[in-house]
Amino acid sequence: MISNSNKETDIIRKVAGNFARHPSQVNQLMEADAEIIWRNGEYLVLKTDGIHEEIKTKLYEDPYLIGWMAVTAPISDIAAVGAVPEGILLSLQMSLHENEDWLKQIQAGINDACLHYHSYVLGGDTNFSDSVSISTTAVAHIKAGRPLLRTGMKPGERLYATSLLGTGNAFAYSRFFNQALDVQFRPVARLVESRVLRTYATSCIDTSDGLFPALAVLSELNNVGFHLETPLLKLLSEDAGSVHRQEGLPDWMLLAGPHGEYELLFTVAGEKQNEFEKECESEGWNPVYLGKVIALPKLDFITGSLKIQCHRHTIANLFYESNGDILAYLQLLKQQHEKWVANN
Amino acid sequence: MISNSNKETDIIRKVAGNFARHPSQVNQLMEADAEIIWRNGEYLVLKTDGIHEEIKTKLYEDPYLIGWMAVTAPISDIAAVGAVPEGILLSLQMSLHENEDWLKQIQAGINDACLHYHSYVLGGDTNFSDSVSISTTAVAHIKAGRPLLRTGMKPGERLYATSLLGTGNAFAYSRFFNQALDVQFRPVARLVESRVLRTYATSCIDTSDGLFPALAVLSELNNVGFHLETPLLKLLSEDAGSVHRQEGLPDWMLLAGPHGEYELLFTVAGEKQNEFEKECESEGWNPVYLGKVIALPKLDFITGSLKIQCHRHTIANLFYESNGDILAYLQLLKQQHEKWVANN
Repeated sequence: MISNSNKETDIIRKVAGNFARHPSQVNQLMEADAEIIWRNGEYLVLKTDGIHEEIKTKLYEDPYLIGWMAVTAPISDIAAVGAVPEGILLSLQMSLHENEDWLKQIQAGINDACLHYHSYVLGGDTNFSDSVSISTTAVAHIKAGRPLLRTGMKPGERLYATSLLGTGNAFAYSRFFNQALDVQFRPVARLVESRVLRTYATSCIDTSDGLFPALAVLSELNNVGFHLETPLLKLLSEDAGSVHRQEGLPDWMLLAGPHGEYELLFTVAGEKQNEFEKECESEGWNPVYLGKVIALPKLDFITGSLKIQCHRHTIANLFYESNGDILAYLQLLKQQHEKWVANN
Repeated sequence: MISNSNKETDIIRKVAGNFARHPSQVNQLMEADAEIIWRNGEYLVLKTDGIHEEIKTKLYEDPYLIGWMAVTAPISDIAAVGAVPEGILLSLQMSLHENEDWLKQIQAGINDACLHYHSYVLGGDTNFSDSVSISTTAVAHIKAGRPLLRTGMKPGERLYATSLLGTGNAFAYSRFFNQALDVQFRPVARLVESRVLRTYATSCIDTSDGLFPALAVLSELNNVGFHLETPLLKLLSEDAGSVHRQEGLPDWMLLAGPHGEYELLFTVAGEKQNEFEKECESEGWNPVYLGKVIALPKLDFITGSLKIQCHRHTIANLFYESNGDILAYLQLLKQQHEKWVANN
């Protein structure tokens, strides 16, 4: 089945599409990972992000990880627009039955992440509920230069990620299907890397929802496609590669699921490619080259011995077609793979 | 039973007391209704507030009211510090089973409130869940003058509210115990009134948690007490007065419960009282005089024919002693009233 629209962006348009926009807001709906307002001679950048489903499905159970992610998730969006974070506000729903140690662990996760990102807890709101859930709002600024948007890429430009991918989905697979795999998950928002991107990137998004869902959003917003030249196997992180081998899971599936790795995915103009890569090296990191932006709104990539060309939303929509049922989702991924094998 | 500490502020200290403070944050923990950061030549004001328990307990069921309150609750805190709102970010958890009309109604409530407060939806985050819940972060500024804090009042100063009180608890009583009462509830954040308060008030808090809980917080933070000279009956709004008469509910109970009316409660120095009242009149509104700040950390007031003097936290803590059980809470209120009758 080929879907003609992106299910995730359809939902966002339905829920938020009718609200009036602030006259000084720089980004349109979905056009950036965070909200950007030009005011008082600078860009004020804000982002609200919630950790709800991750807790409900027990993907996140360790309170330290919950605290760490409550800060890292919105700060990753701050990094994706090239802003500098200042602080966060927390809206915490917790159960009255949680013990003192649980509270200490979640506080430690929040505190450690804030320290790491040179940020502070500015305030918040605590409610008691049957279950745990956190929404965080991050506050940031851009004092010089322009914000990075998801839009702006052109055919021919180069597509990169800040690092190898797939750890988020490898972690989710280990939590849901084989806890013996013991994948470590503690992503770091790419604030340091985003400093170079502010000069060189023509567009940027974080992979909090995974690589293929991010590509689907970029493809729709920019009306382009992607030709991934690097075989997907070479894009996998150590943990993702390990799950791929041990579980016999096709590499593309570890880049398909909606639990991403919080890297930045961005484009650079061809003529800036060398200069950009040198600058990264001098800053102590190496971007991962994925391929090129193409004019046709399609997606092609190499998985194992297969060369796949598919509709830009096919992979991203599989999760929505499963209605969030993890087992059904894995089946849909496997069916998709069999179809590709049969057609090749 | 006399409680020696305020249960609500105890919880806030336990959850948030260990986080490092931003070096440019003006307010200490609990010292203001919103978070105030001095930056870039102005005060940036932020507030996160959640509508969770109100939805869970079905106090709020009408989606329009949920949308209206999701905006009004944090904007009321913005008014309490004397700031000007710019926009909000929404973190919405909604059930996949809600129909189109439900979504339209909640959007209408959000839109109407934003229009009323000259604010915009800057962004947000939507998650699907079994139940509905909203957290909102409001963004505001103070470009000239100083922010209003909860602290700063001195014995002898006058205590006022922006209007008559008790509608929030009258609404809650009607929802939980007698729906035939049909109390209307659609509070308006007191932004207009707060413009005068920025000049005259020595401290300010909103009554989102009800009058007595607000007095308990002010009493603790300022280490003072309150002598309410105006009989409580004269402080009741029309709706609250009506519930008081029809249900035979002592007037103080309608000012005790934790569902407030979103008025501002503030203090003015004695020598400024006349000037302040004249200024309000010229602005088209009349503040309601409650009584005086006193040095002793006690609370005294007149309810019916009784003159009550009690510990500053006694009334506010009754709700926490009921563990949020509404029926048990009503019983605790009635027992407290019987004790006072017996002792007078």
